[in-house]
Amino acid sequence: MAPQYAPSLRSRLPLVAFLLETIFLILFVFFVKIEQQHEQSGRESDSKLFISSYAEFQDVHVMIFMGFGFLATFLVRYGFSGSGFNVLLAAMAIQWAVLINGFLLPQRHHRREIHISMKSVIEAELCAASALVAMGAVHGKTNPVQLLLMALVEVTGFVVTQWILRTLLNADPVYSIMLLHVFGALFGVMVSWVLHREGIKPEHEKEKTDRRTGLFAMFGTLFLWMFWPSFNSALVGDYRRERGLKLTVIYGTYLSLAVSVVMAMSVSMLTSSKGKMNMVHVQSSALSGGVAIGVAMTAVHQPWIAMTIGFCAALLSALGYRYMKNHMLFAFECHDTCGVLSVHAIPGILGWFAHLFLRLASSESTIAVQFAVYHICVLLITACMSLVMGTATVTTKPPNRIHIEAMRDPNANMNPMKSQTLAPTHIQSTFQSCSISISTRNA
Amino acid sequence: MAPQYAPSLRSRLPLVAFLLETIFLILFVFFVKIEQQHEQSGRESDSKLFISSYAEFQDVHVMIFMGFGFLATFLVRYGFSGSGFNVLLAAMAIQWAVLINGFLLPQRHHRREIHISMKSVIEAELCAASALVAMGAVHGKTNPVQLLLMALVEVTGFVVTQWILRTLLNADPVYSIMLLHVFGALFGVMVSWVLHREGIKPEHEKEKTDRRTGLFAMFGTLFLWMFWPSFNSALVGDYRRERGLKLTVIYGTYLSLAVSVVMAMSVSMLTSSKGKMNMVHVQSSALSGGVAIGVAMTAVHQPWIAMTIGFCAALLSALGYRYMKNHMLFAFECHDTCGVLSVHAIPGILGWFAHLFLRLASSESTIAVQFAVYHICVLLITACMSLVMGTATVTTKPPNRIHIEAMRDPNANMNPMKSQTLAPTHIQSTFQSCSISISTRNA
Amino acid sequence: MAPQYAPSLRSRLPLVAFLLETIFLILFVFFVKIEQQHEQSGRESDSKLFISSYAEFQDVHVMIFMGFGFLATFLVRYGFSGSGFNVLLAAMAIQWAVLINGFLLPQRHHRREIHISMKSVIEAELCAASALVAMGAVHGKTNPVQLLLMALVEVTGFVVTQWILRTLLNADPVYSIMLLHVFGALFGVMVSWVLHREGIKPEHEKEKTDRRTGLFAMFGTLFLWMFWPSFNSALVGDYRRERGLKLTVIYGTYLSLAVSVVMAMSVSMLTSSKGKMNMVHVQSSALSGGVAIGVAMTAVHQPWIAMTIGFCAALLSALGYRYMKNHMLFAFECHDTCGVLSVHAIPGILGWFAHLFLRLASSESTIAVQFAVYHICVLLITACMSLVMGTATVTTKPPNRIHIEAMRDPNANMNPMKSQTLAPTHIQSTFQSCSISISTRNA
Repeated sequence: MAPQYAPSLRSRLPLVAFLLETIFLILFVFFVKIEQQHEQSGRESDSKLFISSYAEFQDVHVMIFMGFGFLATFLVRYGFSGSGFNVLLAAMAIQWAVLINGFLLPQRHHRREIHISMKSVIEAELCAASALVAMGAVHGKTNPVQLLLMALVEVTGFVVTQWILRTLLNADPVYSIMLLHVFGALFGVMVSWVLHREGIKPEHEKEKTDRRTGLFAMFGTLFLWMFWPSFNSALVGDYRRERGLKLTVIYGTYLSLAVSVVMAMSVSMLTSSKGKMNMVHVQSSALSGGVAIGVAMTAVHQPWIAMTIGFCAALLSALGYRYMKNHMLFAFECHDTCGVLSVHAIPGILGWFAHLFLRLASSESTIAVQFAVYHICVLLITACMSLVMGTATVTTKPPNRIHIEAMRDPNANMNPMKSQTLAPTHIQSTFQSCSISISTRNA
Repeated sequence: MAPQYAPSLRSRLPLVAFLLETIFLILFVFFVKIEQQHEQSGRESDSKLFISSYAEFQDVHVMIFMGFGFLATFLVRYGFSGSGFNVLLAAMAIQWAVLINGFLLPQRHHRREIHISMKSVIEAELCAASALVAMGAVHGKTNPVQLLLMALVEVTGFVVTQWILRTLLNADPVYSIMLLHVFGALFGVMVSWVLHREGIKPEHEKEKTDRRTGLFAMFGTLFLWMFWPSFNSALVGDYRRERGLKLTVIYGTYLSLAVSVVMAMSVSMLTSSKGKMNMVHVQSSALSGGVAIGVAMTAVHQPWIAMTIGFCAALLSALGYRYMKNHMLFAFECHDTCGVLSVHAIPGILGWFAHLFLRLASSESTIAVQFAVYHICVLLITACMSLVMGTATVTTKPPNRIHIEAMRDPNANMNPMKSQTLAPTHIQSTFQSCSISISTRNA
Repeated sequence: MAPQYAPSLRSRLPLVAFLLETIFLILFVFFVKIEQQHEQSGRESDSKLFISSYAEFQDVHVMIFMGFGFLATFLVRYGFSGSGFNVLLAAMAIQWAVLINGFLLPQRHHRREIHISMKSVIEAELCAASALVAMGAVHGKTNPVQLLLMALVEVTGFVVTQWILRTLLNADPVYSIMLLHVFGALFGVMVSWVLHREGIKPEHEKEKTDRRTGLFAMFGTLFLWMFWPSFNSALVGDYRRERGLKLTVIYGTYLSLAVSVVMAMSVSMLTSSKGKMNMVHVQSSALSGGVAIGVAMTAVHQPWIAMTIGFCAALLSALGYRYMKNHMLFAFECHDTCGVLSVHAIPGILGWFAHLFLRLASSESTIAVQFAVYHICVLLITACMSLVMGTATVTTKPPNRIHIEAMRDPNANMNPMKSQTLAPTHIQSTFQSCSISISTRNA
């Protein structure tokens, strides 16, 4: 196994992390302060806002580190290090997002320096979530250093996209940030497409998405599923000061998720040849209702609309996960490890259509046309930015023919769950299929 | 293993779920709206109530999906699918409970349509909890379709019981909903009794309650244990507008649980022949303090009373789990997989006695007699309803001699925790003991 | 294995627990009441305070039972019973802490009786956390009865230390309670030192800190990591009525933890010979930022200072865990199972230095000297008390030559994660190395 193992690249990770952390620290010294609460405003409302925000922040925090961290543990080889790297990447992405958000999207009264507040931290965590979505598509095809740099580029790209949307189109901040799923998924898929190499066969890849650590993945899924109402509603109140809308978003997300988990299970059993429930499908598609309603939420005011969106999202997502993933591999030579295209991109775009339709149905014709044009521009800009950035991320990095080594779980041989049935020859071949050489595509 | 496997029944689950979900969706279209906050009432108190309610709702939400979902993972064969089916059933039970609650127990100002509010969602989750308790008794003896229908019948029965209690006896809503443990446990035990078949031997059943996935069950237990104060207090403030009582309930539940976990461990070690701690006993009995105090809570005003209730509940529950479960099987031919009779019914009835005693001790004689009669009626109605509904659920369903197949973990052969020591012949016999034929009892 | 097994000592645990629980119950009957909210004070602020306190209490509660319970599951032999005993000990320690806190550190208006309030419960949980830190050092070297008594002695010692600090030095309550990590770690290390026996070899001990249940330990770590901001800020607002400081503490802890997790991973990979990430190191050292900022927090007002503290704490802690643990064993004959010295004591003392330095830098010279003297006294008293109490705990307990048996996981043979590679002879020797005889040191 020695030739597949790349000590030179591996040893760079601590140095890169150390260097980046030092740079972040220096930037924080000069630019970041903790927001002091305004003395002039009433203490009552401030403290109330704080209590509410802190609880919601905690929910989002749990989703990022617990939910996303354990969601990918169904990949046997990532059980152990997957959650570890998730913490590392998320922690760095959040710090970077606080900085870049503060520079590009400053809050009203603080143009010169970045102020840390509950809102800025929640926004940073949502940007990190976008990077974690993108990671889902490239799991197993990159080394940790690449993953780390990719996460930071992704966060930058997402914040730049938001800046464009808010500056050019005067888009609603909540709406623009909720496109994080679409942006992250398309970005990740593009990176995966560029990284693709001829020899990857679906059987090997299937081998890697084993269900041996399934209960851990169930934990991750449930944490995401349970706290998704907070994820969607976290920023609603802050920008709009409308408590009613916040409640509507919470109930809508809750109902949409309840329907989507039922539909994900039904579709998974129906499409399986033996009528078995494929937990990986379920775990992925159960969350699609939350993604879809997240994009459409400001236009949803009836429970049944939220439930219908969840219904359709789970249907599309589960079918997509079941059938599209392999077709993608054959047709477009693009492998999507965690199926983020079906789980995040498709439900996100469905939610976008639902949003468009609901707004058109409720407004007059002249405004409707304006809104439709604006709305389509938002999606196009997001999609273009994510596709361009995703492609650029990889192609610009290896200037000359570097063979990117497969990310190996450093603790794999310690892993208690590790299969005894994997013959050495098999492991060998899996590794070979993973050791991606950019050169084959560039040539 | 082919003959034990019933594809015809299994393939019905997605169709049944799909059909039910569509019916729910249509009912939601016509009857359910999201509650808009009253503009006339002060925004201050409303928003505060919301913040408090949402946090408590989240705690209950975590208990239902995380706590109950992983509590039953100590059953080897249910490790993987157990938590999956738990989510499916709970998600459907909640939707149904929102509807049936809205029809039968309407809130004051909305007689014609059902309004979704934090209170209605929390109530729906408590009803779903009741169904999940009932499920604990029949784990491993039913197929998923039966489990799903049983859950919906149980929720209906529980809401009807509450309607009777509130309409006939003018019972306190909080008190009537807290009988969910007694109702669910008796309902489940009756279903289990009717489903019982001659050949089940305790050894086989023991085999099934293995401790291989014990740490996961520990997670489930701890989530239930930690958030139980929210579970008990969730509805107190909403109905009574007494913040003091809510706090008293929280502290009381907290102390009762602290004592009951200590007692559960002590009794488990004392009654074990080798002085070992049986984690299944502990995980079950540690929660009994919360069940008991939940029924008695509105009458408990001193910490030591709460602790005494927790003390007695854990003592009875742990002894019951240790000795009564097997006796039940021999004496009444009734098998109770998760021991819900000891964990939920007995502590619930103990809490009922404590409630009665505390009220009698603090009131005058004439009122005391009235209260005693009323109080006894409440328990009798709950018990009768649960027993009758539990019996009726099974006997009415299979009209002609259908052999109900055992619920097989669809992912069992993927399960990493699966024992290598189980010989094929043993699996065979376990399956045979599970494939229940209703006909033997009906004949 | 029969001779290593001590049924006489094991059978004492349920009796000791039963007896102690009865004593606690009787003490609660006479001395403890539930705090009724003052009618005269405005309902608004009270209820708001309650909401905030209850959410923070829940976070601390989750950390104690979930975080600490699963943190030590990376020890193979403790996977199952470790989390069980953690619950038992924490539940008893909390009850005892409520009593002893009420006696020694009474709240203002209730000199005669102890009132249970959110504040008193949170303080009790922090005292229990101190005992759980001490437990980390002696895991695997004591039997459960000793562990239980040690926890109660530790809580007593910590409360007495706080009483001395507050009475003699008029120390800030928040500051004195935040020394819980330093006190607990030094206490535990002293107990471990006294319990040390000649024959323990590092290889055997390493065997015991296997990474087989690593993902469970990851859960514990993440729960501690995520909710640490609540842990540090829980008591800030109550004493000071300054919401701004509370927010500053939350943001500071959050940033410090984000930096420390990045640094812990970097150092772990750099110091590893193969560039692998040692998850045990990471899990321990990632938390050091929270420990350090907890001691220094009231003096930290800039984000970058918090990040620098987290940076240094993780650096020291990871290096300490990597190199100091084995040196300690050879040089001082002191074995520290979970490395609490590196994880809790060193970052705590670092935080103390940071606190001293920040105060000195911001105040005038005369006040600075006063503060320095006072500050040094606080640490010295804490350290002395913990060292003396730790030593006294063990030496006074066994009056004549009792051979203390190793704590054996009672469910070890049920453990699914149990290694098949451990040969019987190896187990034998591990046990022998654990069966500590106090007599060798006393002689």
